[in-house]
Amino acid sequence: MGKAWHLKSRPQGMPTADNFELKEIELPPLGEGMIRVRNRWLSVDPYMRGRMNDVKSYVPPFEVGQPLEGGAVGEVIESKAEGFAPGDLVLHFAGWRDEAVAPARTAMKLPDLGAEPQQFLGVLGTTGATAYFGLLDAASAKQGDIVFVSAAAGAVGSVVVQIAKAKGMTVIGSAGGAEKCAFVRSLGADTAIDYREMPILKSLAAAAPDGIDVYFDNVGGSHLDAALAVARNHARFAICGMIEGYNKVEPASLKFIGRVIAARIRLQGFLVFDYQPRMDEFYRDMAGWLKSGAVKPRETVIEGLDQMPEAFLGLFKGENIGKMLVKL
Amino acid sequence: MGKAWHLKSRPQGMPTADNFELKEIELPPLGEGMIRVRNRWLSVDPYMRGRMNDVKSYVPPFEVGQPLEGGAVGEVIESKAEGFAPGDLVLHFAGWRDEAVAPARTAMKLPDLGAEPQQFLGVLGTTGATAYFGLLDAASAKQGDIVFVSAAAGAVGSVVVQIAKAKGMTVIGSAGGAEKCAFVRSLGADTAIDYREMPILKSLAAAAPDGIDVYFDNVGGSHLDAALAVARNHARFAICGMIEGYNKVEPASLKFIGRVIAARIRLQGFLVFDYQPRMDEFYRDMAGWLKSGAVKPRETVIEGLDQMPEAFLGLFKGENIGKMLVKL
Repeated sequence: MGKAWHLKSRPQGMPTADNFELKEIELPPLGEGMIRVRNRWLSVDPYMRGRMNDVKSYVPPFEVGQPLEGGAVGEVIESKAEGFAPGDLVLHFAGWRDEAVAPARTAMKLPDLGAEPQQFLGVLGTTGATAYFGLLDAASAKQGDIVFVSAAAGAVGSVVVQIAKAKGMTVIGSAGGAEKCAFVRSLGADTAIDYREMPILKSLAAAAPDGIDVYFDNVGGSHLDAALAVARNHARFAICGMIEGYNKVEPASLKFIGRVIAARIRLQGFLVFDYQPRMDEFYRDMAGWLKSGAVKPRETVIEGLDQMPEAFLGLFKGENIGKMLVKL
Repeated sequence: MGKAWHLKSRPQGMPTADNFELKEIELPPLGEGMIRVRNRWLSVDPYMRGRMNDVKSYVPPFEVGQPLEGGAVGEVIESKAEGFAPGDLVLHFAGWRDEAVAPARTAMKLPDLGAEPQQFLGVLGTTGATAYFGLLDAASAKQGDIVFVSAAAGAVGSVVVQIAKAKGMTVIGSAGGAEKCAFVRSLGADTAIDYREMPILKSLAAAAPDGIDVYFDNVGGSHLDAALAVARNHARFAICGMIEGYNKVEPASLKFIGRVIAARIRLQGFLVFDYQPRMDEFYRDMAGWLKSGAVKPRETVIEGLDQMPEAFLGLFKGENIGKMLVKL
């Protein structure tokens, strides 16, 4: 028997603890090609909010009454799969629970990069890869560019800031509150904007008097609109997330969308899963940056499976600095 | 002495005849390198609306009390410039007037492509080039794509429809009213949507049950939102114009902007001027299509310089089918 968080009901707007239920689950027998994993670290990510709606998207929606899923790092405790042995640490997607039985082909043994296991849910996981491919591929960011990153103290944003600095770009990051802004500056950002202090358009225009070449969007809404307003000619926007809209029903109101024409702006939505074939490139660069100290991992750790919904809800309340993780 | 339309006052919202004034102008003496041109055809284009606002953009704003400018085709009647002789037909940008004195370097002798002179303001001019480079470069449209074009009966849209069909794409065009929809179908479009009949999202979803690969945006607003709603994975949008927003002050309201992420949509704003170095490629292909009949020029012609503001205002009332021109 294991315990897993289930979707009790679909959230309307901002999710609450009532949408989640921790229940015992019977694990299936360990068939051929399967592994049994004791989870050590669980990931909570903003994209999970989308799966809680009954909407077809790039991944199927979570079902009411069924266990939730997500990234997890755990230890193999039993294996009927070649290449996997008890004691192996694996990255897999049966998160939101303490123990899982899963096909080994859905799990990856952690590569030996001299990193902490939980970093494969953060800087060395989809979080880091999202920052890496979004900035360098979707936004085609290059040395000398002026880059604006929203949610710059968050899991993805904090890595974007550091990669951009490692690559010789000027970086403006936005975050909510003085503590987070201090963190963004500590990552090397040239300017940190506290979006709670004044309208983001006003502070961004002041921080970027010559405009921006690149916008890495984690927020959408008013941040996206401000970036459109100050974008230079041929600016490139990587659209990674729009957390401002995830719990809202009103449409996004974009006063400056018309600037995409005069300034020839490119908006490119992207998903990190499309970059799976290029993960080696990412591991190589990121392992190098971790070693040199150019990228420093930062995590907000919450302990205990029972705290999982609180950790998830905290993402929308801005409670995390860096990657939000649950430690079991 | 010549006559030229001047900007009398800046329009607030929809322009009116009162914003324009026809006045006599004294032409400068014909200096070295200059030509005197008697205009034959004048162009009115939606982008001119933007220049009537006091806003810095890719071209400077028109000044109140000063003559307006725009594309024109005329006959050289006097020349102090090498390579230009009386009788030559030229394309230049001192439109909105009957006669102009201009530096010859700002004029282009019409290439001999066997076309009517006014076509260099339409299918063979920036209008046609906008359709060509927007569709094939900004939107990377290719054979087999499902393409949605808004304002498909308009100057640019009607050329987009025909190029897309010539290149083996499936085409859905939207236009206002039965006559325009019949015209769009006559151009070869697989489906024509009358956006006045029902909400564009509803009719587009019905016309494109499998979604769209490409959207060529001339309208913005609700058309752009509908295209976002039905876009397939990796869809490409060429953002050419947003006529719905030119005379409005309210921000665009986009309910489906979040789909750019899950569907990895690319929005690319563009200006035809950036493609100046590639005009030969355009002339070659377009001359071929005109010769083969794959592209048929269509013009709405208004006669007389005094009708110029009416022709311009007609663009926003949907009064043109194909390219709107004023004949002198």
